[in-house]
Amino acid sequence: MKGLSQIARGGRWLPGCLSVVLLLLTALAAPVAAQTPGPEKGDPTGAFQMTPTSLSVPGYTAPKDPSAPTADEIKALAANVNAVAASASRNYYSINFVWTLVAGFLVMFMQAGFALVETGLVRAKNAGHTMTMNFMVYALGMFGFFICGFAIMCGGANGASIGGPGVLGGAATLDKMLTVGDGWGIMGYTGFFLTGRAYDATAVLWFLFMMVFMDTTATIPTGALAERWSLKSFFIFSIFIGAILYPVYGCWVWGGGWLAQLGMKAGLGHGLIDYAGSSVVHLQGGTLALVLSWMIGPRIGKFDKNGKPRAILGHHIPMVIVGTFILAFGWFGFNAGSSLAGTDGRIGIVAVNTMLAGMSATLFGVMYMWWIHPNKKPDPSMMCNSMLAGLVAITAPCAFVSPVGAFIIGAVAGVLVIWSVMFWDKMRIDDPVGAISVHGVNGAWGVLAVGLFADGTYGDGYNVVAGGVGGLFYGFGSKQLIAQIIGVCVCFAWNAIAGGSIFWIIGKVIGGNRVPAEVEMAGLDIPETGVPGYPEFYNSVTPDTISASEIREAELELAR
Amino acid sequence: MKGLSQIARGGRWLPGCLSVVLLLLTALAAPVAAQTPGPEKGDPTGAFQMTPTSLSVPGYTAPKDPSAPTADEIKALAANVNAVAASASRNYYSINFVWTLVAGFLVMFMQAGFALVETGLVRAKNAGHTMTMNFMVYALGMFGFFICGFAIMCGGANGASIGGPGVLGGAATLDKMLTVGDGWGIMGYTGFFLTGRAYDATAVLWFLFMMVFMDTTATIPTGALAERWSLKSFFIFSIFIGAILYPVYGCWVWGGGWLAQLGMKAGLGHGLIDYAGSSVVHLQGGTLALVLSWMIGPRIGKFDKNGKPRAILGHHIPMVIVGTFILAFGWFGFNAGSSLAGTDGRIGIVAVNTMLAGMSATLFGVMYMWWIHPNKKPDPSMMCNSMLAGLVAITAPCAFVSPVGAFIIGAVAGVLVIWSVMFWDKMRIDDPVGAISVHGVNGAWGVLAVGLFADGTYGDGYNVVAGGVGGLFYGFGSKQLIAQIIGVCVCFAWNAIAGGSIFWIIGKVIGGNRVPAEVEMAGLDIPETGVPGYPEFYNSVTPDTISASEIREAELELAR
Amino acid sequence: MKGLSQIARGGRWLPGCLSVVLLLLTALAAPVAAQTPGPEKGDPTGAFQMTPTSLSVPGYTAPKDPSAPTADEIKALAANVNAVAASASRNYYSINFVWTLVAGFLVMFMQAGFALVETGLVRAKNAGHTMTMNFMVYALGMFGFFICGFAIMCGGANGASIGGPGVLGGAATLDKMLTVGDGWGIMGYTGFFLTGRAYDATAVLWFLFMMVFMDTTATIPTGALAERWSLKSFFIFSIFIGAILYPVYGCWVWGGGWLAQLGMKAGLGHGLIDYAGSSVVHLQGGTLALVLSWMIGPRIGKFDKNGKPRAILGHHIPMVIVGTFILAFGWFGFNAGSSLAGTDGRIGIVAVNTMLAGMSATLFGVMYMWWIHPNKKPDPSMMCNSMLAGLVAITAPCAFVSPVGAFIIGAVAGVLVIWSVMFWDKMRIDDPVGAISVHGVNGAWGVLAVGLFADGTYGDGYNVVAGGVGGLFYGFGSKQLIAQIIGVCVCFAWNAIAGGSIFWIIGKVIGGNRVPAEVEMAGLDIPETGVPGYPEFYNSVTPDTISASEIREAELELAR
Repeated sequence: MKGLSQIARGGRWLPGCLSVVLLLLTALAAPVAAQTPGPEKGDPTGAFQMTPTSLSVPGYTAPKDPSAPTADEIKALAANVNAVAASASRNYYSINFVWTLVAGFLVMFMQAGFALVETGLVRAKNAGHTMTMNFMVYALGMFGFFICGFAIMCGGANGASIGGPGVLGGAATLDKMLTVGDGWGIMGYTGFFLTGRAYDATAVLWFLFMMVFMDTTATIPTGALAERWSLKSFFIFSIFIGAILYPVYGCWVWGGGWLAQLGMKAGLGHGLIDYAGSSVVHLQGGTLALVLSWMIGPRIGKFDKNGKPRAILGHHIPMVIVGTFILAFGWFGFNAGSSLAGTDGRIGIVAVNTMLAGMSATLFGVMYMWWIHPNKKPDPSMMCNSMLAGLVAITAPCAFVSPVGAFIIGAVAGVLVIWSVMFWDKMRIDDPVGAISVHGVNGAWGVLAVGLFADGTYGDGYNVVAGGVGGLFYGFGSKQLIAQIIGVCVCFAWNAIAGGSIFWIIGKVIGGNRVPAEVEMAGLDIPETGVPGYPEFYNSVTPDTISASEIREAELELAR
Repeated sequence: MKGLSQIARGGRWLPGCLSVVLLLLTALAAPVAAQTPGPEKGDPTGAFQMTPTSLSVPGYTAPKDPSAPTADEIKALAANVNAVAASASRNYYSINFVWTLVAGFLVMFMQAGFALVETGLVRAKNAGHTMTMNFMVYALGMFGFFICGFAIMCGGANGASIGGPGVLGGAATLDKMLTVGDGWGIMGYTGFFLTGRAYDATAVLWFLFMMVFMDTTATIPTGALAERWSLKSFFIFSIFIGAILYPVYGCWVWGGGWLAQLGMKAGLGHGLIDYAGSSVVHLQGGTLALVLSWMIGPRIGKFDKNGKPRAILGHHIPMVIVGTFILAFGWFGFNAGSSLAGTDGRIGIVAVNTMLAGMSATLFGVMYMWWIHPNKKPDPSMMCNSMLAGLVAITAPCAFVSPVGAFIIGAVAGVLVIWSVMFWDKMRIDDPVGAISVHGVNGAWGVLAVGLFADGTYGDGYNVVAGGVGGLFYGFGSKQLIAQIIGVCVCFAWNAIAGGSIFWIIGKVIGGNRVPAEVEMAGLDIPETGVPGYPEFYNSVTPDTISASEIREAELELAR
Repeated sequence: MKGLSQIARGGRWLPGCLSVVLLLLTALAAPVAAQTPGPEKGDPTGAFQMTPTSLSVPGYTAPKDPSAPTADEIKALAANVNAVAASASRNYYSINFVWTLVAGFLVMFMQAGFALVETGLVRAKNAGHTMTMNFMVYALGMFGFFICGFAIMCGGANGASIGGPGVLGGAATLDKMLTVGDGWGIMGYTGFFLTGRAYDATAVLWFLFMMVFMDTTATIPTGALAERWSLKSFFIFSIFIGAILYPVYGCWVWGGGWLAQLGMKAGLGHGLIDYAGSSVVHLQGGTLALVLSWMIGPRIGKFDKNGKPRAILGHHIPMVIVGTFILAFGWFGFNAGSSLAGTDGRIGIVAVNTMLAGMSATLFGVMYMWWIHPNKKPDPSMMCNSMLAGLVAITAPCAFVSPVGAFIIGAVAGVLVIWSVMFWDKMRIDDPVGAISVHGVNGAWGVLAVGLFADGTYGDGYNVVAGGVGGLFYGFGSKQLIAQIIGVCVCFAWNAIAGGSIFWIIGKVIGGNRVPAEVEMAGLDIPETGVPGYPEFYNSVTPDTISASEIREAELELAR
């Protein structure tokens, strides 16, 4: 072993060994090529897939001469149509299952994108805390949705006149809807804990897809309230988002509730149309972001004595940009996946509309920034917010508009988000990441855009109304637009009132939603999570224009 | 060109150009809407998909009047059932191919998650080295698996009585199994280098899926041995994991080996049931982590003279959290993909069980930390470990339990991992990332959980045993549990003995598995990889309570 | 509320509440298990998928006794074959739609990988700028491709003799090809803005897949020109890549153009074969990287007075490695997705070939570095470049070679990239990230490798030529190799001439492609994007061997 050991320590033996392997493999390659592949030799092209077997088509028997079957064989074959049809049926639903699952996974991955964007936009001293909120919210929201959120949102979907996601198949096990008046759906009430009849292949799959959308909403306020929200308050509030706030409005739009019924019952186009959640996901999250960040107040030092906003730079631009890419990646699942059907031939157009809107929003946003920015620079964090704004705006109309329509919707969103950020700054609403503008304002814009740009080529039967979904600009009148306006107003009102109330009560019960001023100044990482986000590098930076007296004042104000 | 150049330099022309484009597009939008889409005008809804063509259904001819076909047409149609069945068959296998590939890609992506989690949890001075190990292990493990690992693990799968993955179809080209006694499978021996009969569409696809699971195992020890493992030793050992250590046990469980045969041959339920690898992947990796970190010894300074552990903070919490999200994302492929079949209607429940267990583990872990932590904080790295523990634990039972069962399994895992981390700290086993507790302890818990929580609704025919898989708590007796206990013991013994031996031999041959003490103190990045991980920012931090004499002592001890 | 508030502030009530929930759930678990699942109780196994319904197979009616249908039932059943065939057809195209979309999403995600790799390899002072370029290029390239790139590249694909992607189905709406001589295709000219007949489910889907490949090309020069390219020049040039540079060559290879016709019209094998883009994507990007980095000149300080290169360390190794993992992840979509068909049984082999080439490239590259490096270390950034080189090289041949062939192609690439990096350093071409060597040199190697290693098992009918694609080493003669050589030369010439000209013109019009020397020294982040990439941590490092006089000299040279 001594000799071997010496050779080994020499360090040059590994490349030698690998070179020998390479030579051996080269020698192997020729005879492999010489093999004529066939059933007994391996099938490198996958030709076997065309051979019906008992696995894929049970009971199938081929006629001896397929071009001239005997009478008995015809009889047998006819019987086999049964089996073939069953196989085709399974394939149909399986394609939709696979598509819905993969899309749901992509949406779940957006949590990582939100975590990166939000953390990159805060100061290093709060990086661990912001990340922790983004991580915890995944579990907290899911917990609330598991307890009762799913039951409220989808528990009546199959029983309502709207009907559940038929493309996923399955029995109508979610059929308990609380209604008022002439059958207007208010909330479902079966499927708690996914037990009983909700322990069902389709219902559980649907839970997954609905859950990841809900968690997107739940993570939006963590950005707007970053750098000052106490973990305890955040912890409790997030469960309520998943358990009640999100599901109720969600039921009204996607669970067969009254907003979805506006078309069939009140003649307002197809009722509220929100293909993938500009209102259900983004406007809800954006409204909560607005109301809560108004209630919790701005960060110390964000506004000077005259109310002029100070720029507080995000500590990590690469994080922001990579996070935005992850979001744009997951958004394909978000929008195209909302078909719940890989067998829907429109999914390619949905995906392309999504990326085109993100593209035009980025370009128009950057151009606008380059033009109006004091130093004429394309600010990277605003660039990212522009792309996200475009993606939010196309979320509701993505299936109903043409690529050119998507381009225009995105272009408007890309500039709108910049105006909005400047507006809320003026209103002294402190939103460190721009969540209100990205998700709230552009969520509303997206919902309205359906009523303007829908071109009538798609949506026949959506919400049990015949004909394609059509908007004002394409000669379909204003009824659809009215439904959309109602949806925006209801969404805002519900979340402002219910969300604001819950937040207020939590604050009262646990003694304040906000961390103490000295914690905020020191950074939330150590006081709130026990460890610094980066123990080995960074010097926490406070805008040095904040005077000590100003801090004291802020403390006093917070204490009130 | 001068004038053009001046305009260009003015900087305001780009927004102008884009505005013009926007206006042009708006003008374009209206006429596009006016087009009635049809075959010659483009088909925006994908309706073409319902038109059978020679591509998808070769030989198909429609009767002139489908509702009243003539006798000849019936004859022709019957013959066409052949073609339709072939098409349905291809669709069936293709869905499974697509599902298995996408799931495999997701599992491969988990390598990035492991790299981030482990690197975030070490000190900045070792960031490059830890990343390098996580990167290299992907190639090294794959190399070993390509040479002989796959042949050992799966080379006998199709020939054994257990049968290969029928849902993927294909000929039984992997049919050489070494057996003892009454046909008990020990190891396969065909498929080396994917040559010969293994150059087959199905076999190669299976290689991909099996390979990415193996690489997950191979990356687990890099965490437990971080900050002190020499690259040379790591390099050689990792090839052995892929070539021998992982495949042998893998064959016993998933390759038709004796543990899988415990049911059909010895009446122990369905034999060892490990749906997605709590034992095959995680307990194997965790056992290696335990044995190797015990053999290599703790990091200098981890334990003081009295053996009391010192906290060594991870340098980058955002990395840890984003890495955990990537792992949770990939885990959907890991678990739901282990069906190898998009046509298995259970896959939605598998995916939801996976995310519910991760959720309850996170919540219970955080609650527990908040409760017992000296400063009552939800430590972010432990929070991540709790989620990972829940995901590890649900990996074996994910297909066989109900959502409520998954919730409970995860809740236990979330707390168990904290106890375990504290336990190994007391035992003076230094595991910088908690790999032993996450993967080892909770891998074992997950395997046992099958024998407790399996509810009998799924698994008919698994390991060639009829009926659903059932556990103790659901009234199915203890036989399945016994098979699970055997599996855990065998897995631990095999890896401890074979893995420990190989590690010991490598250490002897190359002169030590561990870097010298001065390298460890300076950080492994430059000495081992040639460059610092972050040349421009960080100040390497050594716990300043380590005295010079202690370091010298550690050097002396390591020299022994 | 006072008492409740006190309890709440005690901090220990949350774990208590959750424990109660756990107990309740445990109690729930037993009765759930007792339920016998059935249609009315939920279907946990998804068995419903085998029940043909009107949704999946319209019009289907089962015979009362499937094993003995009556004459009338046979008649009805025969008529139903129509419906079943339509369903099977839809499933076939849907599988291909889903596969193409998911693969396209993965390729889009590679943008994040490129952003991380490139940013990790530059200095911290340029991190924000490098990230911004990588982000913007996604939108800029897409904008150009949306305007006219797609129309040029694919506008004639369906009409040309080569034919469009039949596996995606749809009408031949993209059928306008500009030809010369005997029908040699030069460029398409329909599909601008995806309007008119291009507003089609299949055409738009194809746009998505083609777009993400184009964006990969567009992002390659941002690496080679990093740390000195002005945003304005980059902005304009990138639109041209998407609008003209990429699409023209792309049309020749993938759009039915003259290089694809070399087989059917000139007898050169199957014409130029580039399965997934070693030339179309990588050699194009690599050629632009070479020509532009030569034109823009090296970074200040890269070469000393004697032309000896100085090492400029990348600032963030973990970014580089995680980025490489993301690229390797997305590459599965890149290569296997290029089938555009989940129903192509070869896709598993394509994916495995891809990962094997990446593996062997990594191992041989690392071994080689370990051997020749002055300090005998496995440099992490070169390790990543080796893997990427292997992936680039296998991109053209991935579908046509055996796993052993892929292993060898990768091994050569892994070493070739190191030689190439050293070569360009000697030629005083400054390429901060190695883009020329990874994408250019190995792109060319990959294209040639098809003509050497293709084993004849796959590719029947590719480019309308019968028989499998075969290379020199497998006894198929040199005709295929000649087509490949032509492809490499044409690709290089087109991009060098057209790309270089456009770059030169832009420089003239806007007054220089490069930032001023003082901006380069200070870092591009603030001057170009307005904000620093990391405002709170890093000390920008300039190699301290650069003297002030050298800088002044560089300024003078740049001013010329």
